[in-house]
Amino acid sequence: MLEPKFDLADSVLSGDTADIYFKRAVTILESQQIEAIVAMEIFSNGTGTLCGIEEAKILLKKVLLPGSEVWALADGDQFDRKEVVLRIKAPYTSFGVYETAILGMLAHGSGWATASRECVQAAKGIPVISFGARHVHPSVVGIMDYAAVVGGCVSCSSSIGAELSGTIPSGTMPHTLILIMGNTIKAAKAFDACMPPEVPRIVLVDTFKDEVEESVNVSITMGDKLDAVRLDTPAERGGVTPHLVKEVRAALDLIGSNNVKIVVSGGITPQRIATMLEENAPVDSFGVGSYISGARPIDFTADIHEVESEPVAKRGRIPGITENPRLKPVLV
Amino acid sequence: MLEPKFDLADSVLSGDTADIYFKRAVTILESQQIEAIVAMEIFSNGTGTLCGIEEAKILLKKVLLPGSEVWALADGDQFDRKEVVLRIKAPYTSFGVYETAILGMLAHGSGWATASRECVQAAKGIPVISFGARHVHPSVVGIMDYAAVVGGCVSCSSSIGAELSGTIPSGTMPHTLILIMGNTIKAAKAFDACMPPEVPRIVLVDTFKDEVEESVNVSITMGDKLDAVRLDTPAERGGVTPHLVKEVRAALDLIGSNNVKIVVSGGITPQRIATMLEENAPVDSFGVGSYISGARPIDFTADIHEVESEPVAKRGRIPGITENPRLKPVLV
Amino acid sequence: MLEPKFDLADSVLSGDTADIYFKRAVTILESQQIEAIVAMEIFSNGTGTLCGIEEAKILLKKVLLPGSEVWALADGDQFDRKEVVLRIKAPYTSFGVYETAILGMLAHGSGWATASRECVQAAKGIPVISFGARHVHPSVVGIMDYAAVVGGCVSCSSSIGAELSGTIPSGTMPHTLILIMGNTIKAAKAFDACMPPEVPRIVLVDTFKDEVEESVNVSITMGDKLDAVRLDTPAERGGVTPHLVKEVRAALDLIGSNNVKIVVSGGITPQRIATMLEENAPVDSFGVGSYISGARPIDFTADIHEVESEPVAKRGRIPGITENPRLKPVLV
Amino acid sequence: MLEPKFDLADSVLSGDTADIYFKRAVTILESQQIEAIVAMEIFSNGTGTLCGIEEAKILLKKVLLPGSEVWALADGDQFDRKEVVLRIKAPYTSFGVYETAILGMLAHGSGWATASRECVQAAKGIPVISFGARHVHPSVVGIMDYAAVVGGCVSCSSSIGAELSGTIPSGTMPHTLILIMGNTIKAAKAFDACMPPEVPRIVLVDTFKDEVEESVNVSITMGDKLDAVRLDTPAERGGVTPHLVKEVRAALDLIGSNNVKIVVSGGITPQRIATMLEENAPVDSFGVGSYISGARPIDFTADIHEVESEPVAKRGRIPGITENPRLKPVLV
Amino acid sequence: MLEPKFDLADSVLSGDTADIYFKRAVTILESQQIEAIVAMEIFSNGTGTLCGIEEAKILLKKVLLPGSEVWALADGDQFDRKEVVLRIKAPYTSFGVYETAILGMLAHGSGWATASRECVQAAKGIPVISFGARHVHPSVVGIMDYAAVVGGCVSCSSSIGAELSGTIPSGTMPHTLILIMGNTIKAAKAFDACMPPEVPRIVLVDTFKDEVEESVNVSITMGDKLDAVRLDTPAERGGVTPHLVKEVRAALDLIGSNNVKIVVSGGITPQRIATMLEENAPVDSFGVGSYISGARPIDFTADIHEVESEPVAKRGRIPGITENPRLKPVLV
Amino acid sequence: MLEPKFDLADSVLSGDTADIYFKRAVTILESQQIEAIVAMEIFSNGTGTLCGIEEAKILLKKVLLPGSEVWALADGDQFDRKEVVLRIKAPYTSFGVYETAILGMLAHGSGWATASRECVQAAKGIPVISFGARHVHPSVVGIMDYAAVVGGCVSCSSSIGAELSGTIPSGTMPHTLILIMGNTIKAAKAFDACMPPEVPRIVLVDTFKDEVEESVNVSITMGDKLDAVRLDTPAERGGVTPHLVKEVRAALDLIGSNNVKIVVSGGITPQRIATMLEENAPVDSFGVGSYISGARPIDFTADIHEVESEPVAKRGRIPGITENPRLKPVLV
Repeated sequence: MLEPKFDLADSVLSGDTADIYFKRAVTILESQQIEAIVAMEIFSNGTGTLCGIEEAKILLKKVLLPGSEVWALADGDQFDRKEVVLRIKAPYTSFGVYETAILGMLAHGSGWATASRECVQAAKGIPVISFGARHVHPSVVGIMDYAAVVGGCVSCSSSIGAELSGTIPSGTMPHTLILIMGNTIKAAKAFDACMPPEVPRIVLVDTFKDEVEESVNVSITMGDKLDAVRLDTPAERGGVTPHLVKEVRAALDLIGSNNVKIVVSGGITPQRIATMLEENAPVDSFGVGSYISGARPIDFTADIHEVESEPVAKRGRIPGITENPRLKPVLV
Repeated sequence: MLEPKFDLADSVLSGDTADIYFKRAVTILESQQIEAIVAMEIFSNGTGTLCGIEEAKILLKKVLLPGSEVWALADGDQFDRKEVVLRIKAPYTSFGVYETAILGMLAHGSGWATASRECVQAAKGIPVISFGARHVHPSVVGIMDYAAVVGGCVSCSSSIGAELSGTIPSGTMPHTLILIMGNTIKAAKAFDACMPPEVPRIVLVDTFKDEVEESVNVSITMGDKLDAVRLDTPAERGGVTPHLVKEVRAALDLIGSNNVKIVVSGGITPQRIATMLEENAPVDSFGVGSYISGARPIDFTADIHEVESEPVAKRGRIPGITENPRLKPVLV
Repeated sequence: MLEPKFDLADSVLSGDTADIYFKRAVTILESQQIEAIVAMEIFSNGTGTLCGIEEAKILLKKVLLPGSEVWALADGDQFDRKEVVLRIKAPYTSFGVYETAILGMLAHGSGWATASRECVQAAKGIPVISFGARHVHPSVVGIMDYAAVVGGCVSCSSSIGAELSGTIPSGTMPHTLILIMGNTIKAAKAFDACMPPEVPRIVLVDTFKDEVEESVNVSITMGDKLDAVRLDTPAERGGVTPHLVKEVRAALDLIGSNNVKIVVSGGITPQRIATMLEENAPVDSFGVGSYISGARPIDFTADIHEVESEPVAKRGRIPGITENPRLKPVLV
Repeated sequence: MLEPKFDLADSVLSGDTADIYFKRAVTILESQQIEAIVAMEIFSNGTGTLCGIEEAKILLKKVLLPGSEVWALADGDQFDRKEVVLRIKAPYTSFGVYETAILGMLAHGSGWATASRECVQAAKGIPVISFGARHVHPSVVGIMDYAAVVGGCVSCSSSIGAELSGTIPSGTMPHTLILIMGNTIKAAKAFDACMPPEVPRIVLVDTFKDEVEESVNVSITMGDKLDAVRLDTPAERGGVTPHLVKEVRAALDLIGSNNVKIVVSGGITPQRIATMLEENAPVDSFGVGSYISGARPIDFTADIHEVESEPVAKRGRIPGITENPRLKPVLV
Repeated sequence: MLEPKFDLADSVLSGDTADIYFKRAVTILESQQIEAIVAMEIFSNGTGTLCGIEEAKILLKKVLLPGSEVWALADGDQFDRKEVVLRIKAPYTSFGVYETAILGMLAHGSGWATASRECVQAAKGIPVISFGARHVHPSVVGIMDYAAVVGGCVSCSSSIGAELSGTIPSGTMPHTLILIMGNTIKAAKAFDACMPPEVPRIVLVDTFKDEVEESVNVSITMGDKLDAVRLDTPAERGGVTPHLVKEVRAALDLIGSNNVKIVVSGGITPQRIATMLEENAPVDSFGVGSYISGARPIDFTADIHEVESEPVAKRGRIPGITENPRLKPVLV
Repeated sequence: MLEPKFDLADSVLSGDTADIYFKRAVTILESQQIEAIVAMEIFSNGTGTLCGIEEAKILLKKVLLPGSEVWALADGDQFDRKEVVLRIKAPYTSFGVYETAILGMLAHGSGWATASRECVQAAKGIPVISFGARHVHPSVVGIMDYAAVVGGCVSCSSSIGAELSGTIPSGTMPHTLILIMGNTIKAAKAFDACMPPEVPRIVLVDTFKDEVEESVNVSITMGDKLDAVRLDTPAERGGVTPHLVKEVRAALDLIGSNNVKIVVSGGITPQRIATMLEENAPVDSFGVGSYISGARPIDFTADIHEVESEPVAKRGRIPGITENPRLKPVLV
């Protein structure tokens, strides 16, 4: 993976997204001419897959003074409960106001990456694609899809996420296209006529007709050009069951379309992936939406453990640097 | 509340945050010269407090052509399961690519607003403040705090959120300030010396000493200037218990500091708010963090129900416009 | 309801279906020339809808000697825990061997009737039809369907059950017919061509195609002749959901087929009936199979409470006649 | 086991016990002169011990035309979820109307056999006897007891079941005999006087007196003639506890009646059998009633998988023959 | 109730039963010549029926100096969570060492009284007798039975408890007597011959024979002299079921012994009492053992709230006297 | 352990603590001149750590006649469900009245010893001290603490318990001492000045100030004299958490007080001990109160199994001596 080009909003650098009291603390310290070098450590009370460190490093690079030190784990690393994932030793006034932003990057990013990894592990090698852009605010779609790829997804549906994560955006066609064109075959043909050759031909087969019937229709019409069919049956119609996948597979095989793949989406969770595998449903890839994009952020906490190289701590913490041999010095 | 000034990122308007297949669908329809006017309806399978409509309207204003029609509920409205909250009747190619963004605004915003309202309802009139900026990515801190205020919070800790929601940012001081200055009294005095008079003097009293002892110390030192003490005892020390609040209240009252208020924060949830009230803990305001900011987005779905004024629907939906007398026409 | 014509098997009258020890007991008493008149009472430890009394009376009429007395509740009555539903006062040797048969008639019959009533009560006036013949041994199909009607079903699918219960047998067409004929339209036309006019035209619409599409196709083809469509979607395809019923209704209404009814079957239980009603699914009748026909028999117990008009009882019972003013003398 | 002589009722052969729509389907096909040869497969969604195949074969022998093919598992075989247990390839009109009867034979029989096997497995070699005739309609007593023996019971209480299963009917004496004769000793003596020598002398010892006291009394009176005592204490008196069995054993041993066995009955389930064994209760055999005879039928489903040797299936099924190497061709 | 004559052991007055640190504290304060008057308050975190105050008052009377003040609730009062039940204002060195003893009296006494009241409330007016002496150390049998009477029991089985509580000891006969004498009738006759007339004739009827049979035997033998039968069937025999009580009642009534009462014992709990009443078992009195005597002590805590009339408190408590208008001044 | 000097109250020897019916039984047998030698066996329906046997032996020594035989397990032995722990073969009238007392000694003692052992096992070698005197009546404080030591506690807080168990009483100082003296340092110094050198200097550090701060203060003041600090934080303040112990340890180590130990008390249970160990809290000893002293007595039952060497038993028991090779003959 190339280094992602995170785009830090001005409001982050200006401190407008920070808790107001950090800005006030810096003001007070500056007015008191207190220039303490502190060691701040960041950890979580949970476990998971870390994401957000790369973005935090970009922020720190912009703000830290020469001579500052940073140690960190990397995006994609698993972290333990109470394990320090990031340590900054620097003049407090140079970075204190960014505590809110750094914690937020880690919290949101790690929540998404962790959920992604759960799906990927359940899928045991079958590719998983992040389809959850629609469940989060557009301002974080890119970073969400980046985190999903960090967690193990092979690609994602948003252009911005694909760019950040160095992957090719992945998608088929919306139900809307079929509804407007009036039938699936027509929409499939138009798709094939308009799209460049590198875009895979994956046709949604649940809009108007029975999925098995439509899969056969589409395969007969498109022949070898058809890469896959996508099953996205809504919950109101029982969702995509393991048996439905088997039926589609059997019907395609019966007409010799053994090479046409089956993509499954719609409310997919690690539990449903596991059930598909247990029941031997012949799925070729999973599209996962809100399980990843709607994942709860994993809270992180930042604590001062040294002031001017003296161990300190607030109540509920242990004074002094916390050992973690997994931390690597980071060039900021 | 004035109209909030949402700042739409370029990547939203360019469609880069959209699911790629919406861009493809528009390309295909344009290449086929299909200019259908469609009616799209948006609903959720859950219930909650709506938020995101104002932002969506700003987006729609920018993109819809004259003659398009939009009906909507308003930010802050409660919505029912399957209730249509937004209906757009317009040429599909003018807005189809923004489906992802609009759904994401509603999903994330309504998740936060709904969690906020749960806290506010549990607090039965005691003010609730949104303290959760640190648990979400900085790109959505402002919109998250705006949604918290829509849900009923009286203020929030981020400057950007306060601006969007037309409130004054709220905050005390970080533990960091006290740790760097070495003791609470010193930090409190410096705070008082540096901050403009309109900033309330609220002192954190759990950094180094017992909360009751420190509350008394701070109150004696600052006298009438002290507005409130904040209790934020970490879970490692048992958190803030109802009894601790009572002890602090009793100790302050014993020295005549009956006007000093008590702010409680740290892992606050509707359940813990309810317990505080049941046990008659004399809390003056609650600071709520990850319960609101870490709330799961509430998924929304968009469906085409008419194409060129003919009722249509995909399987799992009912063709034709869905009646909802609560919807109001919106000038876009 | 006319008096049902139950057909007592020879093996019942011969005592071959009895527990062998009843035959032995009678042999012993006869060999000892003990001719005691006893009062036997029958009750259940559960509650439910009684069924089996009519059949038991036919048996008792055949075997009891003049002067014997019988008191009973009637088929269709609700009975309480420990309530006496049948009392026989007669020479023991004349009827003792039939204890097994009478208890079995009551147990099996009341089990079916009770399950039937649960469905009927859940359906709140929407007709319920017994479709469960396939889940029980053919020797009890008639009596099972009779019990279902006693419990409140409006009709049943077996000819023998319909005859016993004085109803018209109810049925549509099997999937098999459609599979053999190759498509639903063809099968529907053949059905219409061959069946006498009094048989309702109800067409199964889930064999090959999407139910909504097929409902519309069938309705267009058959026009006013079509009485109803039947939805029987298998669990492998998500079963019949409330929303599917609504979609079919909406699609039929959209083409003006407002008079075509919707019959729902396939794994129907009182719980699923209740869900259909809660979600306002426009079902016109329910076909219930194994919930009724697979119902557990409700065990009954027979005890001697008097011997030669003296109160007696085994341990665990109270000696003497048990009062029950609801019992009526029965002419046997 | 000899081949059981099942007695097919006329109503089965006439189709009167069938779902009416099978009769209609055959009528329609005949009127359309459609003579398709089909392959029908029967499976269950559950697992269990198969029973009903022998009876189904007798039915098929009577109705199938020469050249028809049948493959089946055998009574007593365990079957898996979705495993095909019976496949018929024959002209549909020759056997279609019997689908209801065949499924019912399998459902009811396998329900009983499966419950029986659960008891037998729990008993780990201690003989189990089917005592449940009283809980089912007399028309199925024989077939129920046959299934219980298929499941592993060593014998049963009905004459008809014993004949079908090639066993000797098993039973002791009813409480009624003792109640009429006024005491247990008198009843035991009369039993001994009247019964042929091959009938075991098993005396019920819970009618009037404490079971331990009565066991001793009976054993002293009958001496070596006594084979066993039966404990059938009702639930109102705490049922038969493991300790009661131990007390009876100890009391019998104390008077030298070490050869007298102990039969336990009354609400016996696999769980209670397991408890008896865990607590080392010295039971010599178990009489099981409603756990076996009241077992829920295990539903079976029949599907057409070929028409005229072409693979077909309704939605929710896979077209074509389902492989099952355990199936054996059956001479019908 | 007369004032009970509690017998304070020398070891209590000497402080040998106290936690050693109280003795040390007094030594230190005396060596420092600190003579502080303190206000100590005692409360529980649970709720219940208070018992132990009378005994504590006797102890305080012996040790407190003139001028000391004591406020208290009374034995038998209900107390709330955190409610002060005893307040002592006196020189600490005069009573500090007895904190352990006073808390222990209240904890153990209130535990027993509370359990007793639960049984009494469940019994809705049917007398309850404390039969639990055997489950506690003999040193506390008297005080336990006293507490049971405070909680509402009408009497108890120990002589010492009866004396303390001003009641007549209650008891029937042990199984042992019957086992030694060889049968129940003989034991009953000997009991009647030896006991003074005021001792009720209550005969245990479950030793050797069935309870119903033995009840009838005893009643016939003793005639009008018989006051009651006692059912104490062990758990190994199913315990005393509601139905057994009904059978005994029916059997006694059948022979005209309507005046003979039924006492029930053996593992009785409030739940089992409630079940007996729900099932209309005609019990005349309940003997309760380990539910009362094995009740968990209800912990009490003592805290200093004033020293020399100044409000003080340790962390976790509120300084100063706690208002409780229910407290009454007590003459010590 | 030396033989403990149990002090049998006169009321025990007089039989006043016995169930009255035992006194009556002896009176009756004596009046009938029945002098039967019986074998009585005592067992429990539960499992646990035996305690009370030593005291029972002292009682039996006083009352049994020469020639009597006693077999027993020993205090501290584990016993199984239904295992005989004590067998007495002697003339019934010599000891029958003491059945209540012996059962009570075993029940209460074994309840305490068993709870103690649970704590000791959870603590895996870290010493446990019995601090529960305040939760039981002072009459049983000694015997309770003796039982706690039998269960594995290294010492106890009462003088009387320490004497019975041959240990040194263990204790620190009460909160009261600190409250009266006004601060912890002053109380610690007075303690040190007054107490003999063999009493360990253990200072309570949670009365007025934060525990970490106070631990450091005390350690600095007392230097090498300080043996340990005790944490007893009340539940109202979150109790003693594993993290608090770690913080105190870290703070003490930071000032070089590595030898100062940490004693933890306050609502300690085996579960909380286990949590402390799992979270690596550096506890040096646990003080356990109501978990041990408030333990439910473990009920024991006494039964006659022989009268004049003939096996007998009441219903629910097996006649004759019960084998138990673990029993040892006891010289009484």
